[in-house]
Amino acid sequence: MTNSTAPDWIAVDWGTTHLRAWAMRGPDPTAQASSDDGMARLDRAGFEPALLRLVTPWLGDAPVTAMLCGMAGSRQGWVEAPYAQVPTKPADLTPVPAPVQDPRLRVFVLPGLKQVSPPDVMRGEETQIAGFLTQNPNWDGVICLPGTHTKWAHVSAGEVVSFQTFLTGELFALLGQASVLRHSLDGDGWDDAAFAEAVGDTLTRPERLAALLFAIRASDLLQGTPAATARARLSGQLIGAELAAARPYWLGQQIAVIGNATTARPYLDALSAQGVPVSAADADTMVLSGLSHAHAELEASS
Amino acid sequence: MTNSTAPDWIAVDWGTTHLRAWAMRGPDPTAQASSDDGMARLDRAGFEPALLRLVTPWLGDAPVTAMLCGMAGSRQGWVEAPYAQVPTKPADLTPVPAPVQDPRLRVFVLPGLKQVSPPDVMRGEETQIAGFLTQNPNWDGVICLPGTHTKWAHVSAGEVVSFQTFLTGELFALLGQASVLRHSLDGDGWDDAAFAEAVGDTLTRPERLAALLFAIRASDLLQGTPAATARARLSGQLIGAELAAARPYWLGQQIAVIGNATTARPYLDALSAQGVPVSAADADTMVLSGLSHAHAELEASS
Repeated sequence: MTNSTAPDWIAVDWGTTHLRAWAMRGPDPTAQASSDDGMARLDRAGFEPALLRLVTPWLGDAPVTAMLCGMAGSRQGWVEAPYAQVPTKPADLTPVPAPVQDPRLRVFVLPGLKQVSPPDVMRGEETQIAGFLTQNPNWDGVICLPGTHTKWAHVSAGEVVSFQTFLTGELFALLGQASVLRHSLDGDGWDDAAFAEAVGDTLTRPERLAALLFAIRASDLLQGTPAATARARLSGQLIGAELAAARPYWLGQQIAVIGNATTARPYLDALSAQGVPVSAADADTMVLSGLSHAHAELEASS
Repeated sequence: MTNSTAPDWIAVDWGTTHLRAWAMRGPDPTAQASSDDGMARLDRAGFEPALLRLVTPWLGDAPVTAMLCGMAGSRQGWVEAPYAQVPTKPADLTPVPAPVQDPRLRVFVLPGLKQVSPPDVMRGEETQIAGFLTQNPNWDGVICLPGTHTKWAHVSAGEVVSFQTFLTGELFALLGQASVLRHSLDGDGWDDAAFAEAVGDTLTRPERLAALLFAIRASDLLQGTPAATARARLSGQLIGAELAAARPYWLGQQIAVIGNATTARPYLDALSAQGVPVSAADADTMVLSGLSHAHAELEASS
């Protein structure tokens, strides 16, 4: 007996700190579930139970294929899906089958990308890029994927030619939550003008970043700077320094920012202020598009 | 009856995370004690008990003066010793009496320094600078005080003319202990060549810092870079970026680095490699010299 609500397949984005799964009918999600069973808190034997905790309500009698991207394919993941080396087409990556106990599941994990020089790696963003290129065939330009580890990828003729990772999101979190600056950032709100000014400061003179960071604390101590201003200033200083380093990527290019509302907004603001032609794409939509493409390729080849 | 081992006075350096006290005979320490009762873990009422836990063995019948510098004078400290504004002579600061319950103690706290534009503050380092200038009268140049929050101070005619704070030490600790880089820094050792190369990288192109940080992780994943190399590289990248921003301070100046063996060494190496004339002074010796000077001034005025 077939469970009439069973999905055609399951899409999974497995990050370092979060696990997200979608029940899929063709290319469309019909249900979503998530947990904080990220890769960082699991050992190898923990991946299948963590996925089952989310997707068991979706399973019927017939086996269902789950297509995974992200950290589940790392060396410490469910199964290692070795990095593909750039330049390479992210839409042509071959998923690696993962060992599964439960007969109701078939699991495949997409590999990430690596770059030998300068050394760099990504896992998960390649699937968002594949999804973007599936929806925008023949698109050439630069894709920016803001996050804990923001990626910039140069895309041409369907290939990721090169890419570069920045620790900007992680620096913002560490400085805002664990450094002396946390005392000055404790509060809500945002200050657009302070953000724009800070981006300009470090984009023009990136060497000043290390000095400007402590000034956030000092200006609070001496002038009582509001937390909204301090937070926008910290974000702007870090993103301005990133834009200064990523200038070879975005200068004279068309840019697509793939993110969610929170992560993409400051990048869109900062790039627009530089007069860069920039468009936005939703990260969840892109990862589902990329996983759908990989699932369709797998079905076609079997 | 006088306790024959009682000190003439007590010197105290009160930091954010540590408390250190010395029993003094004139300008010379005869005993030392320390604890992790830094300012960050104390409320206002906690300062006197924290000091007594260290110095009670030194107390006799007659009241003893304790001269304090550092965070005990902050707004959240034992008593607020308002910042003196630069330009000012750090050897001429007036200590503020703190309220004390125990009749065996008299407590004075030295103020820190502030700079209005660009906004900056210091508490504790001004006393090390005063000590250095007591031992090196008529010294003009730039003093670098490495630490969690590294300070650069321009000194002329006995005055601190201007200064600038860098978060370098705190960034190194956060990135090394709490970021994704921690996986690549877990181990012992040091790599002089990697340090020197990293200093050169970010001193020449400071905008690359944000990109180079993640490369530490990627080169470990792809090439198995040793932890000693990764740690030296992180330190070098951060110090190189600091030197790029502090260039107006050290270029064409004579530099004194006041620190301990661990904190001063990378700065001495990096500055020497730039051909800068640099000398080293011991931080403990300087803070005791500065506190001794302040204590002698207090005695002379009473």
